[in-house]
Amino acid sequence: MTTASIIGGSGYGGGELLRLLLSHPHIEVKQATSRSHLGEYVYQVHPNLRKQTQLKFSDPATLEPVDVLFLAQPHGQAQHHIEQYAKLGSKIIDLAADFRLRDPAFYEQWYGEKHAAPEWLARFVYGLPELHRAELANANYVSGVGCNATASNLALLPLVKADLLDKSFPVFIEVKVGSSESGAEGNAGSHHAERANVIRTFSAFGHRHTAEVMQEMCVEQVSLTMTAVDLVRGVLATAHAKVKPGVATKDLWKAYRAVANENPFVRIVKEQRGIYRVPEPKILAGTNYADLGFELDEDSGHIVSICAIDNLMKGAAGSAVQCMNLMLGWAETTGLEFTGLHPI
Amino acid sequence: MTTASIIGGSGYGGGELLRLLLSHPHIEVKQATSRSHLGEYVYQVHPNLRKQTQLKFSDPATLEPVDVLFLAQPHGQAQHHIEQYAKLGSKIIDLAADFRLRDPAFYEQWYGEKHAAPEWLARFVYGLPELHRAELANANYVSGVGCNATASNLALLPLVKADLLDKSFPVFIEVKVGSSESGAEGNAGSHHAERANVIRTFSAFGHRHTAEVMQEMCVEQVSLTMTAVDLVRGVLATAHAKVKPGVATKDLWKAYRAVANENPFVRIVKEQRGIYRVPEPKILAGTNYADLGFELDEDSGHIVSICAIDNLMKGAAGSAVQCMNLMLGWAETTGLEFTGLHPI
Amino acid sequence: MTTASIIGGSGYGGGELLRLLLSHPHIEVKQATSRSHLGEYVYQVHPNLRKQTQLKFSDPATLEPVDVLFLAQPHGQAQHHIEQYAKLGSKIIDLAADFRLRDPAFYEQWYGEKHAAPEWLARFVYGLPELHRAELANANYVSGVGCNATASNLALLPLVKADLLDKSFPVFIEVKVGSSESGAEGNAGSHHAERANVIRTFSAFGHRHTAEVMQEMCVEQVSLTMTAVDLVRGVLATAHAKVKPGVATKDLWKAYRAVANENPFVRIVKEQRGIYRVPEPKILAGTNYADLGFELDEDSGHIVSICAIDNLMKGAAGSAVQCMNLMLGWAETTGLEFTGLHPI
Amino acid sequence: MTTASIIGGSGYGGGELLRLLLSHPHIEVKQATSRSHLGEYVYQVHPNLRKQTQLKFSDPATLEPVDVLFLAQPHGQAQHHIEQYAKLGSKIIDLAADFRLRDPAFYEQWYGEKHAAPEWLARFVYGLPELHRAELANANYVSGVGCNATASNLALLPLVKADLLDKSFPVFIEVKVGSSESGAEGNAGSHHAERANVIRTFSAFGHRHTAEVMQEMCVEQVSLTMTAVDLVRGVLATAHAKVKPGVATKDLWKAYRAVANENPFVRIVKEQRGIYRVPEPKILAGTNYADLGFELDEDSGHIVSICAIDNLMKGAAGSAVQCMNLMLGWAETTGLEFTGLHPI
Repeated sequence: MTTASIIGGSGYGGGELLRLLLSHPHIEVKQATSRSHLGEYVYQVHPNLRKQTQLKFSDPATLEPVDVLFLAQPHGQAQHHIEQYAKLGSKIIDLAADFRLRDPAFYEQWYGEKHAAPEWLARFVYGLPELHRAELANANYVSGVGCNATASNLALLPLVKADLLDKSFPVFIEVKVGSSESGAEGNAGSHHAERANVIRTFSAFGHRHTAEVMQEMCVEQVSLTMTAVDLVRGVLATAHAKVKPGVATKDLWKAYRAVANENPFVRIVKEQRGIYRVPEPKILAGTNYADLGFELDEDSGHIVSICAIDNLMKGAAGSAVQCMNLMLGWAETTGLEFTGLHPI
Repeated sequence: MTTASIIGGSGYGGGELLRLLLSHPHIEVKQATSRSHLGEYVYQVHPNLRKQTQLKFSDPATLEPVDVLFLAQPHGQAQHHIEQYAKLGSKIIDLAADFRLRDPAFYEQWYGEKHAAPEWLARFVYGLPELHRAELANANYVSGVGCNATASNLALLPLVKADLLDKSFPVFIEVKVGSSESGAEGNAGSHHAERANVIRTFSAFGHRHTAEVMQEMCVEQVSLTMTAVDLVRGVLATAHAKVKPGVATKDLWKAYRAVANENPFVRIVKEQRGIYRVPEPKILAGTNYADLGFELDEDSGHIVSICAIDNLMKGAAGSAVQCMNLMLGWAETTGLEFTGLHPI
Repeated sequence: MTTASIIGGSGYGGGELLRLLLSHPHIEVKQATSRSHLGEYVYQVHPNLRKQTQLKFSDPATLEPVDVLFLAQPHGQAQHHIEQYAKLGSKIIDLAADFRLRDPAFYEQWYGEKHAAPEWLARFVYGLPELHRAELANANYVSGVGCNATASNLALLPLVKADLLDKSFPVFIEVKVGSSESGAEGNAGSHHAERANVIRTFSAFGHRHTAEVMQEMCVEQVSLTMTAVDLVRGVLATAHAKVKPGVATKDLWKAYRAVANENPFVRIVKEQRGIYRVPEPKILAGTNYADLGFELDEDSGHIVSICAIDNLMKGAAGSAVQCMNLMLGWAETTGLEFTGLHPI
Repeated sequence: MTTASIIGGSGYGGGELLRLLLSHPHIEVKQATSRSHLGEYVYQVHPNLRKQTQLKFSDPATLEPVDVLFLAQPHGQAQHHIEQYAKLGSKIIDLAADFRLRDPAFYEQWYGEKHAAPEWLARFVYGLPELHRAELANANYVSGVGCNATASNLALLPLVKADLLDKSFPVFIEVKVGSSESGAEGNAGSHHAERANVIRTFSAFGHRHTAEVMQEMCVEQVSLTMTAVDLVRGVLATAHAKVKPGVATKDLWKAYRAVANENPFVRIVKEQRGIYRVPEPKILAGTNYADLGFELDEDSGHIVSICAIDNLMKGAAGSAVQCMNLMLGWAETTGLEFTGLHPI
C-alpha cells in the first residue's frame, strides 16, 4: 500500500480527501492533522466517515514521512512550510492556492503580496489532468485548482483547444456557487438565515481564480463574476464569448466531443428532451465529473459555454486524487467511481 | 404620537420590531441601540428598511425617556437593568425570557440560576394576548413570549379552555423550527453548508420554553421535542395528547372555533381539498397569525393539534406590538395587517 | 370606492393582485374569475388571504362592468377577447404578454405567430412606471411587463437614460430566477425533487422577454441568458455591457442616483460593509422595490449592472397596481407600502 | 455474472436500483422497462447514469428471464402479474407495497381493497435484513419495505428486541420526509413554489406504512404522523414511547449497541460535541445506513428514539440490494459501500 497523510484534514477539502483516500484501493491513510479538532475522531467532524475509520486528528508536529502528502490548509500556509513538507512527502499535492500560478509577479499582482517561496512555483504542475495529464505522470509537486477556475477553464477548454475563440473579444464568465465554497469556517454572511434563498453577486470583478483562467487558457481579457445561490455543493460557470467568423454549431460539437472523448470525467450534456438538458451541478455532488454544454448564436457568433462541477470534487479533492492516480501510474479513475445521485 | 425606543435593535427580534414600529400609525421611533453596530444605519443591518428610515443605531447610554420601551436583548440582560429601564419607559415590553415566569423558584429550576430581580417577576404580564388580553389593557410591564412556547400554547389553548384534555396523560409536543430562531449571531451549526437540508432533532427534552407551557397551560406532564428544518422563519408545533372520554370531533370544532372567533389573529386551517389543508408556517412569514388545525382518532382519543406561526412575529415582535396596542387602547391589529405571501 | 375585477385570479400573478387590491384603500374587488377553481373560496387557493375575504372564484361569463379590469390569464388569451373586455372595464391592465410589444411584426418575430388584435397594440402603454410615468397618467389600456424584462430594463435604465452605454458592444444579461416564474401550473421540471438545489441554465438565447428590452431600451444587441436557482420569488438580472470611453464610477453614481431619486420604488444598494452590500431579491419578497447596484472596471469599461426584484411584484402585480395608481391619480405608492422582511 | 432486470425503471426507486446494480460487481443488468420513457436512454431520465450505461428503457412485453427480477412499479401493479413475473425471475424482489403484509385481512383493512393474489403473501419475506436476515438467505420472494416504516421499525428495534418497551402505552412516531418520497410523478402540492420551505403535517393518522410497523414490531398502539419538510432525500422518524419501569439509560446503550453490532448498516449517533450529535438524514444521501439515537427521561420513562435513513436507499433500493446479496450468498454490503457526503 502507498501511504498518504493530509495536513489540514478538518476543512471541507480535507474532509473530501479523507473520504476518497479512505476508500481508495491503493492508499493507506496514516495521519490527518487539525489543530482546532486535535484528538477528536475524524468522524466527529466529518460524520459521513462514521464506522469507516477510527482515525483521530493529530498534531502537525507529529507528522511522519509518507509517500504522498496532501496539503489542505487555508491559503497562504503551505508556501511558508514547503521546504519542511518536502522532507515529509516525496510527492506533494496541495489543494490551496499557494502554488497555482507560475509567475511570482503575477502571483503578487493577484494575491497582493510577495510569494514566500517563489523558487518553488516552477516546480509545481497545475493540478488539472484535463490540461496537464502528460506532465502529471512525471510530477512530484502538484498544485491544487481553484474550483471556479476549474469550471471556467473546462468551459473554455474545447474552444481554446480547437482555436475557435475570437480573443479580441472579452470573455465574461458568470459563476454561480454553493455555500461549501467559502470553507468550513463560515462568516457573518454564511449564517443560514442570511445565506438561505440568496442570489448574491458578491464579486463583479477581480476574483483571484481569474488569474488561473488567464494562465491556463492564455486569455487576456477575461472576467469572473461570482454569484452565490442556495446550494451547498456545486459550481456552474456560464462563459460568454465570441467565436471566430464562420464557426458553426457543428464545429463546436466536434471540439466538445474531442475533449469529452479524451477525458474520462468530462461529459457533454446537450439534450432536446427531458428535465436534464444542460449541465447542472446538483447531480454531480460527490462525483468527479465536469459536465459541459454550449449554445451558439450563429448570427452574432456569441457562444454560451457551460460547465458544471462539484467544487469539492473536480474543483478540489477529486482532481487531487485524479492527479495522484496519474503520478503513481494507477488508472486515472481509481477511487473516483461514484456516479452521483438522482434525485437529489 | 407615542414615542418608543428599542434596546437591542440589531438582532432579529429587534429588527422585526423596527419594521413594525416604523410603519405603525401611532408610533414615533426615537432610538434603537446596538453596541456591535453603533453608528451604522439601521438599514445596513436590516436591509428591508432601506429608504424607510435614516435612523442609526445608538449607544444604550444615550437613551432618553420614551412612552414605550422595548427590550430586545439576549436573555439575561434585562433583569440586571430593569430598575434603570423603568425610569426610561413608563411602559416596558421585553422580548427576552427574563420576565416570562411568575415563580422565582420555577425560573431557577429551568434557567439554572437565581433570578436577578425576582421582585419584578410578579409585576410583568405574560405577553400573549390570546391568554391575557384583559390584563394587558392595564399592564405597564409585559414579558416576551417564547416562540416555541407560543406555538405550543396556542395548539393546546382550545383544548385547555374547553377542558377537553385528559391531563393524566402526558402531552408530547414536536416542534419544528427555522434557522432565525437561533438569533442573528449564529454558531458552528448554523453555517449554511451545515444547516441547509437538515432534519436535526437537537433537543429531545428540557427546552426552556417548556416552562412557559407548564405555567400558562397548567399542565404538568408536557415535553417539547425540538427539530430544526430547512427554513428561515417559522415554527410548527404538533401536539400529541389525549382527550377526555367521549370527546368527539364536533366538540373540537366548537372549541377551536371559539378561540378563532375571540382572537383576530387565530385562524383554523382544516380543509378537505387544495394544497394548503393544514397550518403551515411558510405562508405566515411576516404576519401575526397563528393557524390552528387538529385531527382526532376517536377510537383512542389521541388528538394531534397543530399550530403554525412566524417565530419572529406571533412568536416575538408581532405579539409584542399586539400587546402594545392593547396597553395603549388602540385597535389590537393596528400595524399588524400584513397578510403574508403566496407563493413563498 | 373604485371597483375592480380580475380575470384569471387563481394563478400566481392573479393571486398577488388579489392580495394587493383587497388591502388597497381605494379599491373594492368585485370578482375574480377562475375556471379551474370555480366556486372555491379565494383563500383555498391563496391561503394567505384566509380571514381577509369571503370572495369565491366566479365564471368569466358572469363578469359585470367595473372601473378597472385586470387581466391575469396565460399568454395568448387576452388578444382574442380584448374587444369584449373593453366593454367590461373602462380601464384595462393586462399582466400577460399580449400587448407589450408595439410593432405587430416584432411581435410575430418573437412569439412565432400573428397577433390576433394588432390594431390594439398601439393603444396600450407599456406598464412600467419608471419608463412611462407621464403617459400612464392618461392611459386607459396598460400592458403587463415581463419580469425578466423588468429586471433587465431597470438594470440598464440609468445607463441608457444618461447615455453612457457603448451600443456598438453587445449587452449580455444573465438572469437568475425563482420557481414562481414558471406559473402555478408547473411541469415535470418543477417537481420539487427535480427543481430543488438547481442551477439550471434553461435558456441561453431567445427568451421572449428579450424583445421588451430591445423595445424599451432601444438596444439592438442584447441577449438574456436564463438560469433557474433554488428560490420561489425573485429575479436577479446581472447585465454586462461596455460604457463609452471616459465614463468613470462617479458618472455612474450620478446616473443611478438620478433614477433612484425620480422613482419611489428604486433604491441603490452599494455598500462597503455588512452582509447586504448588493441588490438581492430575497429581501424584496412581497415588495415593489427594484434594487440597483453596479461595478465598473475603469480600465476596460466593462460595467456590471445589477437589478433585483420580486417577479410577482415589480415584475407583475406590483407594477400593475402602481400603474393603476397613476392612471387614477392616486399617490403612486398607495397599497404598495410593504417593506419586506429580514431575515427571510 | 448474475443477471437482473427491473420492471418500472423510470421512477425514483427504479433509478436508484439501476445506480446500484450497474456498479454491482456480480450483476449484469439486462433490461429496465418503462412505458412512459420507452426507447429513451436510461441516462436521459436518470442523468447521474450518463457515461455509465447505454441501456435504453424497454417494453415490459419484451422481458426475458433473468436470475433476479426487481419490481419497482407503483403500488397495486405487481399483485396482478405475479404469476407471470415468477416465470421471468427465479428470485423476485418487489419494491412496492404489494407483498409487505402477511395477512390478507390486514392488507384489506389498510389498503381498502382485497388483495389480488392473497395466496402469494405468505411466500414473501419482508425485505428488511435487520429483521429477517436468516430467512432472507433462503428466500426466493422478497417484499419491499415502506421507507417510513423502515425508519420507524429501526427506531423501535432495539427497544423491542431487548423487550424494554411498555406496550400498554401508545407509541407516537413523528416522521419527517423529503420530496422524493412522493415519487417521480409529482402532484399539485409538489410544485417547487408550493413545496419549498414547507413544514406540512400532511397526515396525522392512518398512513399505510403504520401497518408494517404493527406487523413487524408487534405493537398494537402505534401511530405515524407525517410531516413534509424542505429536503429531497431523507426520512427522520422520532418515536415517542414509554419504557418499562426501572429501565435506565445504560440499558438503552446496551440495547442499541447490540443492534448496531449485529448490523453493518446500523450506526449509533449520540455525541456530546460537534455539529452532528444526533441522527440526520442529510448526510445519509446515497448510503444504506440507518443512524440511530435516543434520549430517555428517566423520571417519566419517556423515551425519544430516532432513526435517520435515505428513503430511496435503506428505505427502498438499498435494502433491496442488501436482500439480494443475502439471497445469493454474497457479502451483505456488496455494492453498498458509498459512505455519503459532508457537507451536503
